[in-house]
Amino acid sequence: MGVEFEREDYLFLNELGISPENLGCYGGGVWRANGPTVTSVNPSDNKPIASVREASLEDYEDSMRACAEARRMWMLTPAPKRGEIVRQIGDGLRDKLPLLGKLVSLEMGKILAEGIGEVQEFIDMCDYAVGLSRQLSGSIIPSERPNHAMMEVWNPLGIVGVITAFNFPCAVLGWNACIALVCGNCVVWKGAPTTPLVTLATTKVIAEVLERNKLPGGIFTCVCGGAEIGSAIAYDTRIPLVSFTGSTKVGLLVQSIVHARHGKTLLELSGNNAIIVMDDAVLPLAVRAVLFAAVGTAGQRCTTCRRLIVHEKVYDDMLAGLLKAYKQVKTGNAVDETTLCGPLHSKHSKACFEEGIKKIKAQGGKILTGGSVIDRDGNFVEPTVVEISHDAEIVREELFGPVLYVFKIKSLEEAIELNNSVPQGLSSSIFTRNPETIFTWIGPTGSDCGIVNVNIPTNGAEIGGAFGGEKATGGGREAGSDSWKQYMHRATCTINYGNDLPLAQGINFGG
Amino acid sequence: MGVEFEREDYLFLNELGISPENLGCYGGGVWRANGPTVTSVNPSDNKPIASVREASLEDYEDSMRACAEARRMWMLTPAPKRGEIVRQIGDGLRDKLPLLGKLVSLEMGKILAEGIGEVQEFIDMCDYAVGLSRQLSGSIIPSERPNHAMMEVWNPLGIVGVITAFNFPCAVLGWNACIALVCGNCVVWKGAPTTPLVTLATTKVIAEVLERNKLPGGIFTCVCGGAEIGSAIAYDTRIPLVSFTGSTKVGLLVQSIVHARHGKTLLELSGNNAIIVMDDAVLPLAVRAVLFAAVGTAGQRCTTCRRLIVHEKVYDDMLAGLLKAYKQVKTGNAVDETTLCGPLHSKHSKACFEEGIKKIKAQGGKILTGGSVIDRDGNFVEPTVVEISHDAEIVREELFGPVLYVFKIKSLEEAIELNNSVPQGLSSSIFTRNPETIFTWIGPTGSDCGIVNVNIPTNGAEIGGAFGGEKATGGGREAGSDSWKQYMHRATCTINYGNDLPLAQGINFGG
Amino acid sequence: MGVEFEREDYLFLNELGISPENLGCYGGGVWRANGPTVTSVNPSDNKPIASVREASLEDYEDSMRACAEARRMWMLTPAPKRGEIVRQIGDGLRDKLPLLGKLVSLEMGKILAEGIGEVQEFIDMCDYAVGLSRQLSGSIIPSERPNHAMMEVWNPLGIVGVITAFNFPCAVLGWNACIALVCGNCVVWKGAPTTPLVTLATTKVIAEVLERNKLPGGIFTCVCGGAEIGSAIAYDTRIPLVSFTGSTKVGLLVQSIVHARHGKTLLELSGNNAIIVMDDAVLPLAVRAVLFAAVGTAGQRCTTCRRLIVHEKVYDDMLAGLLKAYKQVKTGNAVDETTLCGPLHSKHSKACFEEGIKKIKAQGGKILTGGSVIDRDGNFVEPTVVEISHDAEIVREELFGPVLYVFKIKSLEEAIELNNSVPQGLSSSIFTRNPETIFTWIGPTGSDCGIVNVNIPTNGAEIGGAFGGEKATGGGREAGSDSWKQYMHRATCTINYGNDLPLAQGINFGG
Amino acid sequence: MGVEFEREDYLFLNELGISPENLGCYGGGVWRANGPTVTSVNPSDNKPIASVREASLEDYEDSMRACAEARRMWMLTPAPKRGEIVRQIGDGLRDKLPLLGKLVSLEMGKILAEGIGEVQEFIDMCDYAVGLSRQLSGSIIPSERPNHAMMEVWNPLGIVGVITAFNFPCAVLGWNACIALVCGNCVVWKGAPTTPLVTLATTKVIAEVLERNKLPGGIFTCVCGGAEIGSAIAYDTRIPLVSFTGSTKVGLLVQSIVHARHGKTLLELSGNNAIIVMDDAVLPLAVRAVLFAAVGTAGQRCTTCRRLIVHEKVYDDMLAGLLKAYKQVKTGNAVDETTLCGPLHSKHSKACFEEGIKKIKAQGGKILTGGSVIDRDGNFVEPTVVEISHDAEIVREELFGPVLYVFKIKSLEEAIELNNSVPQGLSSSIFTRNPETIFTWIGPTGSDCGIVNVNIPTNGAEIGGAFGGEKATGGGREAGSDSWKQYMHRATCTINYGNDLPLAQGINFGG
Repeated sequence: MGVEFEREDYLFLNELGISPENLGCYGGGVWRANGPTVTSVNPSDNKPIASVREASLEDYEDSMRACAEARRMWMLTPAPKRGEIVRQIGDGLRDKLPLLGKLVSLEMGKILAEGIGEVQEFIDMCDYAVGLSRQLSGSIIPSERPNHAMMEVWNPLGIVGVITAFNFPCAVLGWNACIALVCGNCVVWKGAPTTPLVTLATTKVIAEVLERNKLPGGIFTCVCGGAEIGSAIAYDTRIPLVSFTGSTKVGLLVQSIVHARHGKTLLELSGNNAIIVMDDAVLPLAVRAVLFAAVGTAGQRCTTCRRLIVHEKVYDDMLAGLLKAYKQVKTGNAVDETTLCGPLHSKHSKACFEEGIKKIKAQGGKILTGGSVIDRDGNFVEPTVVEISHDAEIVREELFGPVLYVFKIKSLEEAIELNNSVPQGLSSSIFTRNPETIFTWIGPTGSDCGIVNVNIPTNGAEIGGAFGGEKATGGGREAGSDSWKQYMHRATCTINYGNDLPLAQGINFGG
Repeated sequence: MGVEFEREDYLFLNELGISPENLGCYGGGVWRANGPTVTSVNPSDNKPIASVREASLEDYEDSMRACAEARRMWMLTPAPKRGEIVRQIGDGLRDKLPLLGKLVSLEMGKILAEGIGEVQEFIDMCDYAVGLSRQLSGSIIPSERPNHAMMEVWNPLGIVGVITAFNFPCAVLGWNACIALVCGNCVVWKGAPTTPLVTLATTKVIAEVLERNKLPGGIFTCVCGGAEIGSAIAYDTRIPLVSFTGSTKVGLLVQSIVHARHGKTLLELSGNNAIIVMDDAVLPLAVRAVLFAAVGTAGQRCTTCRRLIVHEKVYDDMLAGLLKAYKQVKTGNAVDETTLCGPLHSKHSKACFEEGIKKIKAQGGKILTGGSVIDRDGNFVEPTVVEISHDAEIVREELFGPVLYVFKIKSLEEAIELNNSVPQGLSSSIFTRNPETIFTWIGPTGSDCGIVNVNIPTNGAEIGGAFGGEKATGGGREAGSDSWKQYMHRATCTINYGNDLPLAQGINFGG
Repeated sequence: MGVEFEREDYLFLNELGISPENLGCYGGGVWRANGPTVTSVNPSDNKPIASVREASLEDYEDSMRACAEARRMWMLTPAPKRGEIVRQIGDGLRDKLPLLGKLVSLEMGKILAEGIGEVQEFIDMCDYAVGLSRQLSGSIIPSERPNHAMMEVWNPLGIVGVITAFNFPCAVLGWNACIALVCGNCVVWKGAPTTPLVTLATTKVIAEVLERNKLPGGIFTCVCGGAEIGSAIAYDTRIPLVSFTGSTKVGLLVQSIVHARHGKTLLELSGNNAIIVMDDAVLPLAVRAVLFAAVGTAGQRCTTCRRLIVHEKVYDDMLAGLLKAYKQVKTGNAVDETTLCGPLHSKHSKACFEEGIKKIKAQGGKILTGGSVIDRDGNFVEPTVVEISHDAEIVREELFGPVLYVFKIKSLEEAIELNNSVPQGLSSSIFTRNPETIFTWIGPTGSDCGIVNVNIPTNGAEIGGAFGGEKATGGGREAGSDSWKQYMHRATCTINYGNDLPLAQGINFGG
Repeated sequence: MGVEFEREDYLFLNELGISPENLGCYGGGVWRANGPTVTSVNPSDNKPIASVREASLEDYEDSMRACAEARRMWMLTPAPKRGEIVRQIGDGLRDKLPLLGKLVSLEMGKILAEGIGEVQEFIDMCDYAVGLSRQLSGSIIPSERPNHAMMEVWNPLGIVGVITAFNFPCAVLGWNACIALVCGNCVVWKGAPTTPLVTLATTKVIAEVLERNKLPGGIFTCVCGGAEIGSAIAYDTRIPLVSFTGSTKVGLLVQSIVHARHGKTLLELSGNNAIIVMDDAVLPLAVRAVLFAAVGTAGQRCTTCRRLIVHEKVYDDMLAGLLKAYKQVKTGNAVDETTLCGPLHSKHSKACFEEGIKKIKAQGGKILTGGSVIDRDGNFVEPTVVEISHDAEIVREELFGPVLYVFKIKSLEEAIELNNSVPQGLSSSIFTRNPETIFTWIGPTGSDCGIVNVNIPTNGAEIGGAFGGEKATGGGREAGSDSWKQYMHRATCTINYGNDLPLAQGINFGG
């Protein structure tokens, strides 16, 4: 395989190591693939970009064997040395930033600024993980027994499986792989079946670093594939931790499979995120934030704002401002720099949008703007704002597109109750200038989400904090804070270096 | 209800608030019970101690309503004030230490020193939690955006369900309740159906403190009952976290129920713990440790040593020493101060022991000492040592009694492989004087357990560290370190206090 | 010595172990004293309460020898066991709370509520330190070299000298001793020469605990005395850390002596604390806070508010409210429950007040209220409010009494500049409801103090945070957060447990 | 200025921006210099390399004004953005690694491997600091008062002065500047007067990054100069923290000046480091370690091993092995790759060596090997081993050259006592295989140093831990762990966001 592209606007793919036809499995340092062939399609025109041969189960098994072999060597490599490898991966991505960002935009359908921002986030994660490689610190805890040292020690798990979704085809791997690698784990990655080119281009950067440093390729494995490969990962007892990003439904299934074999999961599942606009909010700021949160990535972020909760005193003004802003949104080809709203990722997504709009209407929703698919090539739909009762069943679901439900409330208490009333618990935001409101919102009786913002949108998290959500969102945490602990095995160690055997709690056992 | 005991040796129960007949549900500050009546039996003679009327589902529901009502008030009570309440609970237990310890011994069957040690552990937890109440600290994380404050905030979950097992009828509640309470949660406790008196006596201490401080009784709820009540807790959407101690089988069931409703679990399940004795071990120390670890609590601790892995060079000496020590073990009534090995907890336990011995023999095991039940009142069995192939199926199971399997190994590598070869991953220990062996053992290629000891037994953890295990043991961590985080809800908060809306990763969205 | 008091209102002192004549040195578990005799005087009437014989230098030396002997045993006592001793000290103080609080009020002159609050703070510190005794944790840091373990270990210093001031004769010992003791240090305490009875009563509680636990008395030493004893502590090479509370002038002297012998100091020196009232402040809250901060303890807290910085828009209203509040302040005998402002501590303090008022007038200050001493027994002065230029020299000094300077400002920037313009950097506060103002105030360009409050007074710190200040205040931190680290010796340990000798930074040295 | 070098072996200096004549002050983004001209001399031949015009006091003042102006902007730059600048500095150094390492070797006199290792350490610090820039985290501490948020906030100090010594002309700046910069401080650096070329070449890398990012040059200032400039820094009230590396004598002087103006110091002063070899040590490992520790950098590291304490049972063998190893040490030109021991840094150093040898002999020392200066160009001396009484006065001093004192001991206790018997407390090491010995050594009764090693030399610290020492070594800590806190200002903030004013410790003040 490996001829070059002829279409001029795809020529840049050559520089990312992508050809019109590609092998979709990197295992044990070798590119291979014996599974079915899939075609990557440009959501802006629904025309093929390139084809990828996916991994067969044999490819998977061969790759995992190499991975399992590399495990011991990598676990015993000092963490700062692992950090140096991740640093080089970051530099490799930095070299490819504009091109890889463009590929993300091309294949996923998000706008160029967001495609580049996504790769930048991976780079940021690399930089962060390098520092972390000298800070994966255990503790030495005072023992109640003389001549005893009590320690909390953190060791690698060995292998981490990472299953990512189409909406962040690059950054979510970065969140997981950077931390997993410095923690001493080999990584096995299955990207989304519809974004294989980003998967391959990203893997090539990592592979190049491993090869340059003469490290076993088994340290990083990439297996393009669908449910069959995902299932193989879930059932694989060699993989103590499976990090899964996707729907709540599939996530819970993966979790039950992994738990049954006594493995762990790190879940990043559905969101259903609200922004509250209080009566003391700075409305222009709120309008801009809601626009970015609801329309950005064409509503396909897990942190996309899907519900807008507005205080009655500013309801009309807020809506007027918002609808005006919606009117100015330019929809178009994702890689076109002037586009603000690209296409949905797939025909399937577009069909779901249409289905959702039908349900909305059936459940009494009133379309304030948008509500239709756009009649042109590509999966374009209109950014949509809907007034609907908060009791409507559809409000509890995650409709993965640019649809925003609007509600009117009378008090902070009512707003918080509404915010917390859905099964999901990922992100949430309030616009206010009142310290009491702010601290109530982030306090015990405030938002029940994992991300709780003030005067910024629900989306656009920084990597220094922990990313993830509660309830149906799955409870996992990625990126910063102590998220790394999930990628390691904690041991409480007590070392008796003396000559006696005193017992805890002062127990005397026949002594 | 509520006449006093007549048997002189049970008179002390009066001082614990226990009567011959008791109500088994404390909810909303009221004692009640409308469920079936169970009899608490003394495992040393299988005669009844007292009866307890368990909670009906209506009792449960009434109690939970009061609990849910108390939740808001308790969450908003400043943590140090909650700590003061836990301090008073500790003082209440301190007052009752010898009596409550004796009741633990009487009803559970562990020897007196262990019964008192268990209550002492609860007291230690109270003292620890008081300090913790001023240290449940969140973080202020540097934001990459000007005029933004990023914080990691920890809030209470609201209500924590605690389901405990018969073998630690008091301390495990302490591990959970002390932390859960200072973290701002109401606690709902279901103790084991066979240790209701310990449940009640412990609850009375806590209830007294709540009442003295004029706090809602709903802050602490106790519901005596069996599987029906356990199931009600598992399914109750008001309970975001269920902490369960028990078998792997039931634990996984509870977990799947709780996860399906998007709740969290903290699991402390089966152990199958090994002690490795290397050729440079101090044998007398090792003998004493193995004896305590295998025979203590009649082998019914989750941290009981069930497997002894001995280097071939010291195998004969170690076994000789151990068998000699076993001969000196005095079996007898649990509350008799000279007893070293009390009865098993129940007739059922005794039957399991007999069944286990049969399997052992069928699978080629050779009984080196013990192996029989003791023909007297009470559930007494002989402390047993067995030589058996490590391939035998029974070795992978947790036989909850004083049965120790012995294996011979040639190297550290082989010993660690054997240690890690069972499904469970709770506790493990090595005896050695070699630093390289020690650090290998606690390092990436060492024990895969949550507790990794050196020159001490597998059991007898201190509260300052995190207690819990990996793999089939469930992954939960109780007591010290950052275990408290499991009892709280983590929110990553970003507050924009400026007038602009810069986006993370430097993204420019139509701005 | 040791007859009982006859004056009825001093009878309670008997229960604290205080007699009309007392020995002022507790060393090696023995009460002794061969130095000069001083008389403790009641500042509310300037009449003697009781006399105390101070320690001679020989007493000091004998005590220190016992202390040095106890050191090794105490350092090697496991921290949680040391915590148990501190817990018992807390319980001892709890038993004496009302009486000891009353003695603080009687001898120091602060009002009863503050006297009791001071003892409560010591008790809180004990509770906190008990938890801390299991959390004095070191770290295990990833090493860049294979087979190397890097650790940060914290060990006791051995002996900590604590020199306290008259204004907090009890609590400051508590801040230091609770932490120093759980950290494994023996403590040598010199209280203020004018509050020896509080020193003795407090020491008796601690001594009783040591004796009950059969511990060496050398663990806690108390030496009543003046500059000679203070100087002995400063020069004593057996004391690696001297914690000093007092004036900047004396503090710097102590520091230079201790540094010259390569010891460490922890300094809590002068404050000159401001409250800023912005134009959006809730004035009644601000008035109440300023009153407490400026008049509480008759202006003799190190955190007393001495400067009030008011936005011009609310200047008149704020001042009107404040002056009205000042009018209602009841001055009187400290132990009288209706008193809000007790006497100054000593005749010397009163003279300084008079001297200060003279300077104020000479430097152009305008007395808005107060300004005079009160003509009655005891060291009473009027709570005083002064309008003065911020350029006046006296504004830069700490006048230790209830004198408040008021300034008018136009902007936050001007307010912060004024706040930061004095040499001292202890406490500061702002009243506002604006998040931007709040975060600016606590951020890089805000207050330069160690304590930076919002909508609360400058005084009244909680023990969970670190207490102390910057610049001329000395830089020390006591009580919570990681203050304990100052009482320990940090060692960065690297253990090579392998068989090779790799060098850091990959250096090859002739290998 | 700025012609190029003609000597072929100095041509590489051109690539570092060094010319035969150079300006020695970089301030406000401008190179300037109006002070005296100094000549940098090659210690391997005592011939000039290049000349540098030092800063005048006017240059200093102009530079500091620019620095003070840049301060506010830099403090308000988000920490992760500051981290990005430090990352680029790291990349800049990476580009120059071999050349700058060679210059360090050339100008300081350490061997090439050490010169490159020193620059690598700076690079490691940059990588570490990048991660740290998202982890300079404050805390949110539970408040005892409702509606109050207590926080510990860390803010920049503003400006940090760094004064470094000749022996680590590059890395010590790295330890300080990387941390100081990400913490938000501008840095003012004075390198050693005898290593100005390293100072300039390092500054040029940093300046290039600032310029490329269009940042104010005032963020990093370099002032070549001697005592006059050092003194200006010490007295400068704009510099809240002075980090000083050098002798104890000068360090204490700097400290007293800075303290008098209420500033802070971070001191890294003299070491007098011992290696203990116990009777169970692996001698070949110990020999190799002692050789590196005593002869590396020609004995001019602050962590150089100056005292060897050997158990009597292995004394003869250890000494025999060591003397054999000393014989094989090749002394020669520092940049020659086969050299193991380069010259002393200066003629002055050589004279001190000669003076020291005289004193050693006068105090009864017996020269086992070495003891003479080498008669050739350059400041070469023989690596020297001396048997001497531990009572000899000279043993308590830091003789800055390759002189090792050897002592014989009988027990661990004696060894530790000897280790701790000198005024300095920087580094220490033991060779043993006994866990009890190891934990005693790193425990409360073990080494009193800041660096406490096992089976590795006294020198060669990793950056992940805190570097620094106790007692006369000054107590400062640089590089890893929480060293960053010294570069920031800690504020304990309590925010009342409610409407009441409850007081801590439950005090009721007229409310």
